[in-house]
Amino acid sequence: MDYIKLFAPATVANVSCGFDSLGFAIDGIGDEMTFTKTPNKGAVISNITGADLTYDVDQNAAGAVVKKMLEDANADFGIELTMHKGFYPGSGLGSSAASAAGAAFGANQLLGDIYSKLELTKFAMYGEEVACGSAIADNVSAAIYGGFVLVRSYEPLEIVKLPAPSELRIVAIHPQIEIKTKDAREVLPKEILLKDAITQWANVGGLISGLYTDNYNLISNSLVDIVVEPHRKKLIPFFDDVKNAAINAGALGAGISGSGPTIFAICKGDDAAKEVFDAIELSYRDKFVDFEMFTSKIDEEGIKILHSF
Amino acid sequence: MDYIKLFAPATVANVSCGFDSLGFAIDGIGDEMTFTKTPNKGAVISNITGADLTYDVDQNAAGAVVKKMLEDANADFGIELTMHKGFYPGSGLGSSAASAAGAAFGANQLLGDIYSKLELTKFAMYGEEVACGSAIADNVSAAIYGGFVLVRSYEPLEIVKLPAPSELRIVAIHPQIEIKTKDAREVLPKEILLKDAITQWANVGGLISGLYTDNYNLISNSLVDIVVEPHRKKLIPFFDDVKNAAINAGALGAGISGSGPTIFAICKGDDAAKEVFDAIELSYRDKFVDFEMFTSKIDEEGIKILHSF
Repeated sequence: MDYIKLFAPATVANVSCGFDSLGFAIDGIGDEMTFTKTPNKGAVISNITGADLTYDVDQNAAGAVVKKMLEDANADFGIELTMHKGFYPGSGLGSSAASAAGAAFGANQLLGDIYSKLELTKFAMYGEEVACGSAIADNVSAAIYGGFVLVRSYEPLEIVKLPAPSELRIVAIHPQIEIKTKDAREVLPKEILLKDAITQWANVGGLISGLYTDNYNLISNSLVDIVVEPHRKKLIPFFDDVKNAAINAGALGAGISGSGPTIFAICKGDDAAKEVFDAIELSYRDKFVDFEMFTSKIDEEGIKILHSF
Repeated sequence: MDYIKLFAPATVANVSCGFDSLGFAIDGIGDEMTFTKTPNKGAVISNITGADLTYDVDQNAAGAVVKKMLEDANADFGIELTMHKGFYPGSGLGSSAASAAGAAFGANQLLGDIYSKLELTKFAMYGEEVACGSAIADNVSAAIYGGFVLVRSYEPLEIVKLPAPSELRIVAIHPQIEIKTKDAREVLPKEILLKDAITQWANVGGLISGLYTDNYNLISNSLVDIVVEPHRKKLIPFFDDVKNAAINAGALGAGISGSGPTIFAICKGDDAAKEVFDAIELSYRDKFVDFEMFTSKIDEEGIKILHSF
């Protein structure tokens, strides 16, 4: 393969009770990227549209991943890549993760498909580290595996792909504010009550059981985060208004996507998603904060090849 | 129905990462109980064998449950019950839970099967409260539902029955020492590190995924408790020796049953269970602590009717 054009999805990490553990991929929102073999070794970024990101391959999440993979594989060719960002960096929807995961996937195809999904996740985590300062796995693994994923362990890295009931729909609102990762981290306590931890892991268990059994009631009951959300929601204006509007309109649950500011709601079916979309929009219309919204399915497939030769 | 004889299984609660949330029922170890309708209202315990327990229906886990259920249902008859304890109170295998769950099940049959499993669990929790001072649900729900159970929530009570892969085997050792519930509670920290809580709930997620997918590797990787076991194992002499012997002999995992002192190992298949049994026995033989051991399957069914008319 000499050329590949692909789609790398946006992702929701820190899904409710599953902080730092559960993520899922979003259908239809994401980046388009191209990878072209070049005779000159190394990685070059030739075009970036849709966001103001660095062309320096050592600083760019995608560029750094491609460069490292070419070096690790001792490739006798180089890769020129282009990125069209389909959503905003800093939204909490895994922007750098989509770039890093897409880069790992694309480079692997040009290298002859020599790496497993788990290995691609590790390469993409390196891109996350370059972009964000920490090698988090939940967004990149959701982009690479598709669907719902559980990061069971970091050492060693173990990713579990979970089933996603077919009627799940996502409604998301992205208030146009910036949350600094540093602030999102500093607002978290170092220690939590054991009894709260028990509540949280029982909910993780319930959520995962609900995903395996298409039990939407159980999913809804379990989409509760008593550990992180109470702290981080303070950084997102009118979070409670949005969440209440979503729940009252029939959402199974709602929470903060990644470290925010995007708020996601999970719904059962298209009709509920429409009701929830309208309710959230109504709740934010008079808040003097610009926002964007979308409705989506869960992306079961993950990164998709659009074209190759 | 005027008479029922039943078998109420022993249970393992606090299964590894699932402290206060996950339990399972043990096949073949448990109590035999009989329940006979009497013209006189109220509950009477006419015989207890196998353990030295009170005949006072207000103090006895089984008696208290039967009395309460008769009162709640405004029954025009009474129940005389007998209990043959098949395992030791204080072993950490849910002795009072088996009595309480059996009582709830038996009384319900004589009342015409008017309560759901969830309602029976609530009645049995009342028995736990009478016997142990707190209305814990994991042992009683495992006895009533059978198999693996998740206590997803207490308020409201929600029990999720999980699948149990057919090759799972349990090996258990009961060192003949007493652990006071008070000590087992006091040794636990009130607060834990957030990062440890994350590790724990990712393991809960992995364990439950493994149960749904018959993935014994994932079950094994997830049978890790970094929150409670490090504290409570100090109360159990030579815990690490037993655990290491079990793991080295091929157990998927091992941990403390309930609040101990029984240590359980989970294995895949009969051959592994035999190896693990022998290894644990060897590890404890020279320790100058009396012990009993058993091997069992998971009891998928829960409480069983042995005879009725």
